[in-house]
Amino acid sequence: MKVVIIGGVAAGPKVGAKINRLCPHADVTLIEKGEFLSYAGCGLPYYIAGEVKEQKELMCTPVGVVRDPVFFQNVKNLKVLNRTEAISVDRAAKMVTVRDLRTAEEKVLPYDKLVFATGSSLIRPPLSGIDLNNVFSVHKVEDAEAIRAALAQNKAKDVVIIGGGLIGLEMTEALARHGARITIVERLPHILPMMDADLVIHVMKYLESKGVKVRCSTLVQSFQGNGQVASVRTDKGDIACDMVIVAVGVRPNTGLAKDAGLELGKTGGIKVSSTMQTSDPDIYAAGDCTEGCDLITGEPCFIPLGSTANKEGRVAAVNVCGGKDVFNGVLGTAVVKVFDYTVARTGLGEERARKAGFDVVTVLSPAPDKAHYYPAAKTIMMKLIADKKSRRLLGLQVVGPGEGDKRVDVAVTAITAKMTVDDVAHLDLAYAPPYSPAMDNIITACDIARNKMDGVFEGVTPVEVKAMIERKADVVLLDVRSPGEVQAFPFPGSVNIPLGALRKRWTELPKDKEIVAFCKISLRGYEAAMILKGEGFTKVKVMDGGLAMWIS
Amino acid sequence: MKVVIIGGVAAGPKVGAKINRLCPHADVTLIEKGEFLSYAGCGLPYYIAGEVKEQKELMCTPVGVVRDPVFFQNVKNLKVLNRTEAISVDRAAKMVTVRDLRTAEEKVLPYDKLVFATGSSLIRPPLSGIDLNNVFSVHKVEDAEAIRAALAQNKAKDVVIIGGGLIGLEMTEALARHGARITIVERLPHILPMMDADLVIHVMKYLESKGVKVRCSTLVQSFQGNGQVASVRTDKGDIACDMVIVAVGVRPNTGLAKDAGLELGKTGGIKVSSTMQTSDPDIYAAGDCTEGCDLITGEPCFIPLGSTANKEGRVAAVNVCGGKDVFNGVLGTAVVKVFDYTVARTGLGEERARKAGFDVVTVLSPAPDKAHYYPAAKTIMMKLIADKKSRRLLGLQVVGPGEGDKRVDVAVTAITAKMTVDDVAHLDLAYAPPYSPAMDNIITACDIARNKMDGVFEGVTPVEVKAMIERKADVVLLDVRSPGEVQAFPFPGSVNIPLGALRKRWTELPKDKEIVAFCKISLRGYEAAMILKGEGFTKVKVMDGGLAMWIS
Repeated sequence: MKVVIIGGVAAGPKVGAKINRLCPHADVTLIEKGEFLSYAGCGLPYYIAGEVKEQKELMCTPVGVVRDPVFFQNVKNLKVLNRTEAISVDRAAKMVTVRDLRTAEEKVLPYDKLVFATGSSLIRPPLSGIDLNNVFSVHKVEDAEAIRAALAQNKAKDVVIIGGGLIGLEMTEALARHGARITIVERLPHILPMMDADLVIHVMKYLESKGVKVRCSTLVQSFQGNGQVASVRTDKGDIACDMVIVAVGVRPNTGLAKDAGLELGKTGGIKVSSTMQTSDPDIYAAGDCTEGCDLITGEPCFIPLGSTANKEGRVAAVNVCGGKDVFNGVLGTAVVKVFDYTVARTGLGEERARKAGFDVVTVLSPAPDKAHYYPAAKTIMMKLIADKKSRRLLGLQVVGPGEGDKRVDVAVTAITAKMTVDDVAHLDLAYAPPYSPAMDNIITACDIARNKMDGVFEGVTPVEVKAMIERKADVVLLDVRSPGEVQAFPFPGSVNIPLGALRKRWTELPKDKEIVAFCKISLRGYEAAMILKGEGFTKVKVMDGGLAMWIS
Repeated sequence: MKVVIIGGVAAGPKVGAKINRLCPHADVTLIEKGEFLSYAGCGLPYYIAGEVKEQKELMCTPVGVVRDPVFFQNVKNLKVLNRTEAISVDRAAKMVTVRDLRTAEEKVLPYDKLVFATGSSLIRPPLSGIDLNNVFSVHKVEDAEAIRAALAQNKAKDVVIIGGGLIGLEMTEALARHGARITIVERLPHILPMMDADLVIHVMKYLESKGVKVRCSTLVQSFQGNGQVASVRTDKGDIACDMVIVAVGVRPNTGLAKDAGLELGKTGGIKVSSTMQTSDPDIYAAGDCTEGCDLITGEPCFIPLGSTANKEGRVAAVNVCGGKDVFNGVLGTAVVKVFDYTVARTGLGEERARKAGFDVVTVLSPAPDKAHYYPAAKTIMMKLIADKKSRRLLGLQVVGPGEGDKRVDVAVTAITAKMTVDDVAHLDLAYAPPYSPAMDNIITACDIARNKMDGVFEGVTPVEVKAMIERKADVVLLDVRSPGEVQAFPFPGSVNIPLGALRKRWTELPKDKEIVAFCKISLRGYEAAMILKGEGFTKVKVMDGGLAMWIS
């Protein structure tokens, strides 16, 4: 069996290695346009930061074996043609024409099975001045080396990062480590568009506290400078800088697939079945060049990730070899380290869940990630999205210094298994004080969702409360914190009755008016609402997440 | 509705608070024998260690509100009778007789619903000398204060800890922080009996590297000393010491329930249905005093944990109030911090899985918990247990400095949802270099399990290889590491052919003999087996986990 794989970074080598293990005598050729194979592209920001010391580390296996063409030949039994471009595919004749980029020599490779692992390319907006010196992207090893060289020459004192997505934020931290003053410019109303606005606002506040300027709803128009970039022109004024990082996303590399007549998906990637087969049964595709499928809605999506590329690569290889494996889709899971914050998400956000027709219940829950008395405990601000009708968990988002990634991974598993919030609330998660509260954060959030679904109490989000205040709504804001807490962090316009006094002082409150109860995290706010409900109040709501989730 | 709850530490207050929120006018009385209510018993080792500074912190809510009887009355609307013991239950008359331990006064409390939350008691073996000074247990706040007082007087230079379970290990770290020299004495062949022997051996090696002596298969016979303990007598000799911690487990407090004629389970706890109802429909029970149910096998179990107590308490409260909620059982999940190691497990161990009739496949996989090039990456040694027939994940165990608790929580969720290893291998877990490898540890372990189930390769455990060496079996131990690695850490009796040379040098190996291939983590060992299989070898196995899991 002759197999040709086009692309040698993430999915390609995985496909090749797995095919060889399953069919040791397959004749597998791997074609890669660049010099480097199978490097850890996701590690580039950490190499730029200086946390990863040597470029070589990004090229090695976990035990330090360098993944060069000789390695692939000797160990994986793959013929590697690097610096070689696939220029056309003749599907009828089952042949790929390739060109050696060093010699310009062309040759034709016959195949029984062909695999597209052509990856993605940076989107480089066609703006005036984008080719000035010190306007960088972060996609290849060469980009990282160029940025490191500029850093070594002290040419990164003021950096503008265009795009507040995952790479933009990783680069923010990487360059801040070198002492750069950073401005993030984002065209959308908030950074990290995969996160809900009411949660991501806490990331933006945190970034500002770290000295990073965040400019949202701002359009970049051009780059100014003489040889080297000196400022970024936006619709809201110029921003002086000596370095620019353009991180506005990637698009799938599908030119060759399109020319070969393969079907592309709505989102632009190569259309594949769950066996990673393209519209041609002898051609498979895996990784960034393909269109994905949202596991909850079944809708097509384009979410390029190294982790997905590896899983898809294995599935493609098994099917190429005549086995049977399927990859059903993704949940849009993402995680990024932003200084000491972990920001992560999975599943549907609130808006998408509504658009998909779910009867959405949301929870905002700020809580320590370990037993609250354990000194290393840190806060996770959590937002949970669930469906009232089916009671299914639909999504989870986390922001804060606590270990949110653990809770998101639990949610990934639960959502994939179509678990309800009731199921999740009863999970026997690992508990000891250094690892979680006795009721883990995700269990507490699910219990709050269950209370809301069961009509035990009604929530109102900080965004809604803020709108009430702004429109001077006729509502009592009931602060049930202790006098000491109120003094330390007052909430203007509210009435303070400490929770412990409420059973005696509820008569001070009007039964005919809407009341919003809250405290620091709205646990006491919830207790207060229950006490008032018990006394016959019918218009009491609880502010979701309390002042810990307040947006100012 | 009159509700009486017996027990005020973990499940009891949860039941009471939840009942009050659901039925604000219920008349709820909470009876507690001790002085303290709702304290964080799991936090005692960290208070003894000095990590938690004030006793008060263990008594507070996450926002610092002290949970004293006044708090329960004013906030939770519970009548609290502390220092009060329930001495009998008249089920026909629906009355509980209680005695005030301060005044010896007795009174009778009528109930509509009664809840047992009587918790568990320490097992205190009836050995000679157990009442000597400085022989402690760790169960109540008073125990912790006594140990802290002894530490303050510098009376803990040499400590013997009887019992190598979770509390024993938490106390090991707590006392080591004070500079104590520690010996753990365990009657079983290994500490942490909930873990599999081949994984826990790495915990024992680590403890020894930290200066802790571990004496297994050792029976304590008596405590020697004059007033204060001076040594522990065992069947293997005396161990000199100035402090002893007895941590041999707890048993459910069921005397009152038994006297009242409630049915007890096989494991000794109060028998309850999934609604937490006892054999008397008006009596519920929750927490340590109850018998649990293993979610996989359906067998009864006794696994007292604060996390389970909270979940069961909520379920009991909902049902007491006429709602409907169920708690189906637990997976025996446990986690413990042992210095810088995280040791955790869930589901069935290898032996129990076999006994339960599963066709067991196991995987040993040592791998970094983050991208291997990310400097903060640390190793997790992982053991996965699955069923070949159904392909279901059955159990996961982790040991090492890496974040194993995250992977165990994913396994908890997957096992509860009855996921297969194929399902888990395709989970869209959160990936970025500071959080996981591109293929998360649990995904890699599941892929290895899939390869074994599909007959791609055959494994042999380090325990089996050691036995082969000891019986001088006619087997070739094929080390495919690089010469440099072999020189640094030789493996006597093996043949070294580096993986990269194997495609040329396989002719040096005999086809008729059994061959066990390995490397540092057996990834190259696996590649080697695939290469040899391709060349017609039929007797090649791979040593599970490689030298990283070797037991010496």
